[in-house]
Amino acid sequence: MYKVQVASHLKFTDEQKEELEAVSDQLSFVYHKDTDADIILGNVRPESLKEYKNLKWIQTAAAGIDNLIRKGILPDGVILTNAADVHSREVAEHTFAMILSMAKKLYLYRDDQHKHLWADEGMVKQYDEMKVCIVGLGDIGNTLAKLCKALGMYVIGVKRRMIDKPDHVDELYTSEDLDKAISDVDVVVTVMPGNKENENLFTLETFRKMRKDTIMINVGRGNLYTEETLKEVLDNKIIAAVSSDVYLKEPLDPNNELWDKPNLVLTPHVAGGYHLYSAIEKFLDLCKENLRRYLNGEELINIVTIREE
Amino acid sequence: MYKVQVASHLKFTDEQKEELEAVSDQLSFVYHKDTDADIILGNVRPESLKEYKNLKWIQTAAAGIDNLIRKGILPDGVILTNAADVHSREVAEHTFAMILSMAKKLYLYRDDQHKHLWADEGMVKQYDEMKVCIVGLGDIGNTLAKLCKALGMYVIGVKRRMIDKPDHVDELYTSEDLDKAISDVDVVVTVMPGNKENENLFTLETFRKMRKDTIMINVGRGNLYTEETLKEVLDNKIIAAVSSDVYLKEPLDPNNELWDKPNLVLTPHVAGGYHLYSAIEKFLDLCKENLRRYLNGEELINIVTIREE
Repeated sequence: MYKVQVASHLKFTDEQKEELEAVSDQLSFVYHKDTDADIILGNVRPESLKEYKNLKWIQTAAAGIDNLIRKGILPDGVILTNAADVHSREVAEHTFAMILSMAKKLYLYRDDQHKHLWADEGMVKQYDEMKVCIVGLGDIGNTLAKLCKALGMYVIGVKRRMIDKPDHVDELYTSEDLDKAISDVDVVVTVMPGNKENENLFTLETFRKMRKDTIMINVGRGNLYTEETLKEVLDNKIIAAVSSDVYLKEPLDPNNELWDKPNLVLTPHVAGGYHLYSAIEKFLDLCKENLRRYLNGEELINIVTIREE
Repeated sequence: MYKVQVASHLKFTDEQKEELEAVSDQLSFVYHKDTDADIILGNVRPESLKEYKNLKWIQTAAAGIDNLIRKGILPDGVILTNAADVHSREVAEHTFAMILSMAKKLYLYRDDQHKHLWADEGMVKQYDEMKVCIVGLGDIGNTLAKLCKALGMYVIGVKRRMIDKPDHVDELYTSEDLDKAISDVDVVVTVMPGNKENENLFTLETFRKMRKDTIMINVGRGNLYTEETLKEVLDNKIIAAVSSDVYLKEPLDPNNELWDKPNLVLTPHVAGGYHLYSAIEKFLDLCKENLRRYLNGEELINIVTIREE
């Protein structure tokens, strides 16, 4: 018998819990913290891991799990699987809505509304004339690229290593040519993981490579640039605007001056996070399949390897 | 020789003015008000029309020209042509950005940002599960329908008279079945002209026919409902939210309480209005072609007939 702790933050309905429990009668499920658990489904705080004496496997609900893959956090022998791809659609759709709404200056009109200001904010961009550079061409990036292509946008992809160019991408670059890839586009989207390699990858010099009318949307991780860099970009209008869903320290401090930057469009890490019912459904399917595999001694899906840095 | 007054609000570049002037040397152009003009390109205030002694033809820059087609405004014998279709792309694209940004609650996150509030606004809608009802299936409506279909949305069209269903529409109704058409959709878009027939067409009862989670976007005219109806809909949350680009009296009075309604997303009549370069280009082409036809005695494009009401 294995005890499975299902994290309370998961938004499973009663029907979905029944589906989960039907996987096998070798599994007993609890829906609260239980340090006797063999398996954890859902996110867990790294500092509480040492309390779990029987832990064998963690299936996280997130794709980016920077806090668990730092050396020394995961107890020896514990398997870690993540929820890669589960969030692709919701993050891509959020980003796409942000691209369109910023291209049409809707955030500026919302600000004007608060000021009771009936003002024309000027020319806007036409979808089929827009160029979008997507830095990080994984599952989210590819889903986003297809949305952009559906409206006739020109899509440039940037990937760590060269691959065959997919049909929904017009030009493909490797990270080495990042500066070139972002130099002449309407929108730069960054959707890379928060690993060491990407830490502070976007310096002030990187932003200066973009056109002044470029909009940047970061739905990857907050360590892509320093807060100082971001503030300088915004204050000096080095590009037209930034939308960021991710921050170095979340939640962002209420006193942080970033909140009041008019050319920063802030969302509170909600691009993913199970805001689509289909994402919850997809995670449920992953849990069911991985539980089945675990009991049968098969290799799990989405195993995360802890890299020595 | 005909004198052509080109309204100063038109955003023609010097190159575009040259193109216009090259149509014929029988035309002399002025770029300011000139009551000797035979032809006016661009919008004109109805009350100043009587000052023009030689006026033969007005080519307006707008599609909706409610103020000119009221009986008794247009001097006898003056031809009126409008800019129908010129604005279709910009209005459709603005509306589409609004659909996506409201489906993803981006306006709520913008409001939260102003309050320094890191808050989760809950579930959002998935594009390919959305149903959109477009009331008014002219050029704008059809352009919008194609954008919606490109993301896999289900599109219901409402047209005054029955036509063959276009491929980019899944269901087609006539105005008589309006209540049915809007009864089970995520988004209702209204894009009808501001004529008597549509005046106060949307009563409180009409809004009550919609689902409580429906979003309505009005890019037609402000006389579609009374201001009292709109306020009741918003205050009683009869539907989830309204976005309106048009108002009965524009600009909206800074003291109007509509500005502060959190579930009203207000834009200041900017969905059209030459915010895309391609719209300016399209209007230039229309002017050139109509000037050529006028000089050759051919029938003009987009003639507006004043209906006796």
